[in-house]
Amino acid sequence: MDEHLMQRALALAAENVATGGGPFGAIVVKDGRMIGTGVNRVTAMHDPTAHAEVVAIRDACANLGTFQLDGCDLYTSCEPCPMCLGAIYWARPDRVFYAASRHDAASAGFDDALIYDEIGLEPSARRIPFVHAPVAGTLRPFEVWNANDAKTRY
Amino acid sequence: MDEHLMQRALALAAENVATGGGPFGAIVVKDGRMIGTGVNRVTAMHDPTAHAEVVAIRDACANLGTFQLDGCDLYTSCEPCPMCLGAIYWARPDRVFYAASRHDAASAGFDDALIYDEIGLEPSARRIPFVHAPVAGTLRPFEVWNANDAKTRY
Repeated sequence: MDEHLMQRALALAAENVATGGGPFGAIVVKDGRMIGTGVNRVTAMHDPTAHAEVVAIRDACANLGTFQLDGCDLYTSCEPCPMCLGAIYWARPDRVFYAASRHDAASAGFDDALIYDEIGLEPSARRIPFVHAPVAGTLRPFEVWNANDAKTRY
Repeated sequence: MDEHLMQRALALAAENVATGGGPFGAIVVKDGRMIGTGVNRVTAMHDPTAHAEVVAIRDACANLGTFQLDGCDLYTSCEPCPMCLGAIYWARPDRVFYAASRHDAASAGFDDALIYDEIGLEPSARRIPFVHAPVAGTLRPFEVWNANDAKTRY
């Protein structure tokens, strides 16, 4: 863990509040070099997915011209929420370092802990109901995918 | 559940494979009107977060000029992965309808089920290690946030 990089992520987070964003910052590093940064821009950009980690991952991937972050580390000012955790698993960096915990975030009024609790529930029992509604042709997209020899797996 | 809308989401998913994307499609509906659509563009856009649901949520929010989807329903061709579930919780639509299940997705080679398993593990025990690394000033971004009377909560 490079404390200097974590301090940079925390500085991004604090500075972001002054420009109307949430108190979160993240950095993607490869071979000791910062290749992506992100701050929370949910309200400013009208984008509920614009969390610091998602923004940093998108930035790093755009800079590298790839959809995978192997060989990279992610530094974030706070433990990733489930959305960001999922984004991290799809981007596949080597490691994640976080400063504040989900409980620190909850104390500051952010619902990450709630979503961690909800995710393990039966889909239909969640506060936002997830209704399984299979219809005729539900598996057709996967059949088309499996039959396509030109596909790029991810 | 409006089967016509689900068939539209499935059609978007199948069509997307032909243009180099993954077999997933999603639609956001408000008052019976489609206000956002999305397909999986991970590989085409070099963006591991460009899942159908995330793209549809971002599209709907951009069209509405808001970061919240209250009063909306989300139709998706497949059960949302943990990243998309998190995005849904932050966007807060009323309901989610999905056609294929996470197990159907796993059969087609998509790792959603793995991420659902990983999310409940201790952070340091995951395949991608999440390392809690508090440093001096870790809570400072939250202190700045709490002291900012002009903030927009989300």
